[in-house]
Amino acid sequence: MSEALSPEVFDAVCVQADQAARAQEKLARANTAVKNDLLLAIADALDAHAGEIEAANSLDMLEAKESGMDAGKLDRLLFDVPRVAAAAQGVRHVATLPDPVGEIVRGYNLPNGLRLTQTRVPMGVIGMIYEARPNVTVDVASLCLKSGNAAILRGGHAAERTNAATLSVIAPVLEAHGFDVALVQSVDQYGRAGATAMMEARGHIDVLVPRGGAGLIQAVVRNSKVPVIETGAGNVHIYIDRSGDLTKAIPIILNAKTQRVGVCNAAEKLLVHKDVAADFLPAIATALAQANVVLQADAISYDIIQGAAIEGIELNHATEEDWDTEYLALKMGVKVVDSLDEAITHINQHSTGHTESIIAEDYEAIETFTKRIDSAVVMVNASTRFTDGGVFGFGAELGISTQKMHARGPMGLREMTTTKWIGYGTGQVRA
Amino acid sequence: MSEALSPEVFDAVCVQADQAARAQEKLARANTAVKNDLLLAIADALDAHAGEIEAANSLDMLEAKESGMDAGKLDRLLFDVPRVAAAAQGVRHVATLPDPVGEIVRGYNLPNGLRLTQTRVPMGVIGMIYEARPNVTVDVASLCLKSGNAAILRGGHAAERTNAATLSVIAPVLEAHGFDVALVQSVDQYGRAGATAMMEARGHIDVLVPRGGAGLIQAVVRNSKVPVIETGAGNVHIYIDRSGDLTKAIPIILNAKTQRVGVCNAAEKLLVHKDVAADFLPAIATALAQANVVLQADAISYDIIQGAAIEGIELNHATEEDWDTEYLALKMGVKVVDSLDEAITHINQHSTGHTESIIAEDYEAIETFTKRIDSAVVMVNASTRFTDGGVFGFGAELGISTQKMHARGPMGLREMTTTKWIGYGTGQVRA
Repeated sequence: MSEALSPEVFDAVCVQADQAARAQEKLARANTAVKNDLLLAIADALDAHAGEIEAANSLDMLEAKESGMDAGKLDRLLFDVPRVAAAAQGVRHVATLPDPVGEIVRGYNLPNGLRLTQTRVPMGVIGMIYEARPNVTVDVASLCLKSGNAAILRGGHAAERTNAATLSVIAPVLEAHGFDVALVQSVDQYGRAGATAMMEARGHIDVLVPRGGAGLIQAVVRNSKVPVIETGAGNVHIYIDRSGDLTKAIPIILNAKTQRVGVCNAAEKLLVHKDVAADFLPAIATALAQANVVLQADAISYDIIQGAAIEGIELNHATEEDWDTEYLALKMGVKVVDSLDEAITHINQHSTGHTESIIAEDYEAIETFTKRIDSAVVMVNASTRFTDGGVFGFGAELGISTQKMHARGPMGLREMTTTKWIGYGTGQVRA
Repeated sequence: MSEALSPEVFDAVCVQADQAARAQEKLARANTAVKNDLLLAIADALDAHAGEIEAANSLDMLEAKESGMDAGKLDRLLFDVPRVAAAAQGVRHVATLPDPVGEIVRGYNLPNGLRLTQTRVPMGVIGMIYEARPNVTVDVASLCLKSGNAAILRGGHAAERTNAATLSVIAPVLEAHGFDVALVQSVDQYGRAGATAMMEARGHIDVLVPRGGAGLIQAVVRNSKVPVIETGAGNVHIYIDRSGDLTKAIPIILNAKTQRVGVCNAAEKLLVHKDVAADFLPAIATALAQANVVLQADAISYDIIQGAAIEGIELNHATEEDWDTEYLALKMGVKVVDSLDEAITHINQHSTGHTESIIAEDYEAIETFTKRIDSAVVMVNASTRFTDGGVFGFGAELGISTQKMHARGPMGLREMTTTKWIGYGTGQVRA
């Protein structure tokens, strides 16, 4: 057990998780209509109490500003009345999504007449460790409830008042609908030890999903005894094959790099086949420079771009570290590769396994790239920004899994379930 | 890192795993026909070299006997010519199974024309930690190869010579078919430290599957930094509802308890509704006593069974510990419950989540039991012994998962895969 965790906190969190599990047993059997009614009532309650949540949030914001939090984080922490209203709309949207629980995944009769069905059921108790983003509290609560799961939450310290206010709006709605308030709980009262206790609570929490920066995710992945779904980190590559079309490449690269910065599906690296580097790189670099993207270039691409004398460009020599860095900023690593094979090898070595895209017209190159790239999502002549549960048609997402177990890529409601086999017999025994 | 693990061993195992990953990249793209040819050639080689494997095994057997290994373990360690031949037949059978790789799980067009497909792909490098059972080496190797995965193996110490002989039969076949011998490797040369290194090798090994006794499995589950699929432990319950049919109950209980002892799907506990306990228990206890099953009974069932004066019965008072014990022996815990609800609560509290069965004719009781029991498999009027990949029609199984993530219940070839999303575009960017 971690040095920071007292047995008292561990026991208390396990008790909370076990209460959640008992509460979840009832939710697991609830009809979709009942769950949707609950979600709509939660949305209404959020709207009705948005002022109280905003008031709590303004105390969090004040403290965060005083402690010198940067503008980006402050923006993510803000949960004022309009944002609460947007979150409530999100809850209403989750109510409209198809319910994965009860879906028959497979079913058939054995030769002896035993009728087997593999049915989708909720996971049980889902733990979520995330940063100071109060909208995540509402998102996760609604996704968990819709998929029949209980939620145990540890949000970032800076959002504690906001999260507490939000949960105290949700709790009475749960009770009014005949459910236990233990269905959606926080362990914020234990501070960081709450997160540590969650990671130790194997057998009490069924799955843990960390959401946030790479440091947070890696800490959970490496220390948790509860099964973890690794999400988020995206060192995303675009490879321009020698058969690539420059008129497709430029808009795709611009979109993938600049449409939204600081998200996991934004492109971070550009690999260009040597046969088209001299032609393509000046044009691409010009477009990126106009969008204020700093380029970290390997020796060959540096020389080509430097030679093009692009106005206003910020061009640096890439270091080895660049190839493994997720910038989450207006910055892009650029490298010329000798072959498709070199591109694939480089990507499989340096990628976080999130999303990669190939720009190519050659069938064989596309087949090879899509087969050999070992990432959750591989795009062909399309922006990497499409890797998103909403875009994929899941309606909403819990996160984007970059691991191979259980779920890979965007995780929607279906990915928050497991299955149960049921065998309906008439007295069968094994010979 | 564990105290027992030297950095040298850790690094060496990571290097092995990385070689396996590179070798697996080629296997992942191999056609089914190529993989089947490889498997058939391995089966032939096992037959051709069965004598050498038997010779190595007889040294392992000799040492095991001298060290006082019990008869059951010695039997599992034995890998003589007939058993090698049976294992080779198993490999030929795996060659006949459908290949899960390449299956399109989902596929649709987004409104912008991006064509999305979710395709089944191999996991990558599968680590297996198991006990001294040489047939598992052949099983796992064939299942991994068929599903496009590399295998890193750590078998029990007592089987080291046998496993080495087996792998040295497989290696030249891999080479002759154009694959790298790194596809199927052992870390036995590092002894126990090899297993420890595998558990630390996150990022090098994709998934770890422990197979063996509860102690081994729990040690891996609690210590591994690599994602684990928990398998095997089965504290399996049969509940006889007050609507249960005694003529179905007796054969099912006898089959589930005695058809094969020491397997994870054998029944360990019998719960009987109080309304039928006085009628049913004497008959069931008589049948179990005739099959030499020792009964560990709670107070009420003890009195009923004792009162029936059954000839030759061995009847003991159950302790609290009994309810959590997987006997793997001719022993069964017996308990009278007041209600279906009490049965479900008891099972969900004490079960390992493997398989439970209800004997009932009442629709409502069956619906409630199958919905509320939180185990991988729930049987209705059928033996728990049916929980098996072969019986379920998977052709073969890697193990039986008792966890909720990734796979639940019998794990066949399909459960040894993950998926990859591929988005085929024509220049799409995100608005």
